[in-house]
Amino acid sequence: MTYELYYWDGIPGRGEFVRLALEQAGADYVDVARTDGGMARMMAMMKNKTAGVAPLAPPFLRDGEFLVSHAANILLYLGNRLGLAPEDEAGRITAHGLQLTITDFVAEIHDTHHPIGVSLYYEDQKDEALRRAENFLEERLPKFLGYFERQLTKNSHRQVHALGGTLTYVDLSLFHLVEGLRYAFPGAMTAAEPDYPLLVALNAQVSHLPRIKAYLASERRLAFNEQGIFRHYPELDRS
Amino acid sequence: MTYELYYWDGIPGRGEFVRLALEQAGADYVDVARTDGGMARMMAMMKNKTAGVAPLAPPFLRDGEFLVSHAANILLYLGNRLGLAPEDEAGRITAHGLQLTITDFVAEIHDTHHPIGVSLYYEDQKDEALRRAENFLEERLPKFLGYFERQLTKNSHRQVHALGGTLTYVDLSLFHLVEGLRYAFPGAMTAAEPDYPLLVALNAQVSHLPRIKAYLASERRLAFNEQGIFRHYPELDRS
Repeated sequence: MTYELYYWDGIPGRGEFVRLALEQAGADYVDVARTDGGMARMMAMMKNKTAGVAPLAPPFLRDGEFLVSHAANILLYLGNRLGLAPEDEAGRITAHGLQLTITDFVAEIHDTHHPIGVSLYYEDQKDEALRRAENFLEERLPKFLGYFERQLTKNSHRQVHALGGTLTYVDLSLFHLVEGLRYAFPGAMTAAEPDYPLLVALNAQVSHLPRIKAYLASERRLAFNEQGIFRHYPELDRS
Repeated sequence: MTYELYYWDGIPGRGEFVRLALEQAGADYVDVARTDGGMARMMAMMKNKTAGVAPLAPPFLRDGEFLVSHAANILLYLGNRLGLAPEDEAGRITAHGLQLTITDFVAEIHDTHHPIGVSLYYEDQKDEALRRAENFLEERLPKFLGYFERQLTKNSHRQVHALGGTLTYVDLSLFHLVEGLRYAFPGAMTAAEPDYPLLVALNAQVSHLPRIKAYLASERRLAFNEQGIFRHYPELDRS
């Protein structure tokens, strides 16, 4: 069965956390909104006219007739199917807890450029964004990165992993988190990275996985840009 | 086995979504931070010195030696154990998707009074809060409430439920969401409620469940106040 991933075209966004898992597993999937007519299909599915529960927003995944909303929930659903999560309940729930911490962090990263409202342009909330980004870089970035670094420190041996001794979707998401932060805040990250050697090592380790490497070089990987979650506005960064 | 819930004392907060499920199920639990020495125990558990994964923030639940972080993840874990979630995987994942939508909404509600940073006082981000709350009431409140109302409309028959024909933890969370919004934004909610008759009906229905009714009248139920997620600042509301 081919998985159908529904996410906005043109940005890596929250869909990317799912794409990385599908790619690493070599799963058969379609990135629907990037196909002909796919955007209209995605919008129709959110109109909530059919039986069952329609998602409020992308990303969502369709597996046969079953729909799953939210990146973290999709990864919970796919984790065992793709061999990228612990098999026992405790392990699955623990991995999901880490992924929800990543979700919280991603929401805060997004709000550095949209502290007032998603419907407003960045330019119309730039003063507030300057204040929020400053607070974010001062307090929230080290809080979250420090948390993940400690987890990697406790868990890693020869290979760096967030959980257990093998690759999980959490590792793939942490790879992308570092990629995105480097794009959005290159000045702050250059200064910060020496404090997080295992996050840096995990990023490099994931980037060398053969399937991830091939994916990153392909057209399926969308570049970061100023429409997504991770945006580079130099005035929000530290020099 | 007694469940241990860890959450800040003094506010309903995100812990309340878990408390309501435990209370409705008549589960044996301790609200640890509200017991003698409980706050110190909670803080120690977040220090991440032990094996396994420590949570970054409350709420978290301890079941024997197993720790679960994040309100929605705790409800995913407890749902079947408490008889408050569908038993099949598709139902569990669907309920969790709705709960994660509630989680997203709760984060936006929180940020109406803290749009710049959690470490700053409200008074130090009041100008930004005025703008964010205006945008929230204009666009986000109807978006989320409309979404849940449509779901209730599609799913409800004689009784109002978010999923299937029986009570789930999603119904309990939607009850609390309406309670909190009424406290925080009484003016806006008085104006809005006629548009969401099933959310209003579900709120009343849940409030009359015998165990919930007893809980709400007990000292275990903490009052809303200006330290939590749902805060009443008249200047952020609509008259």
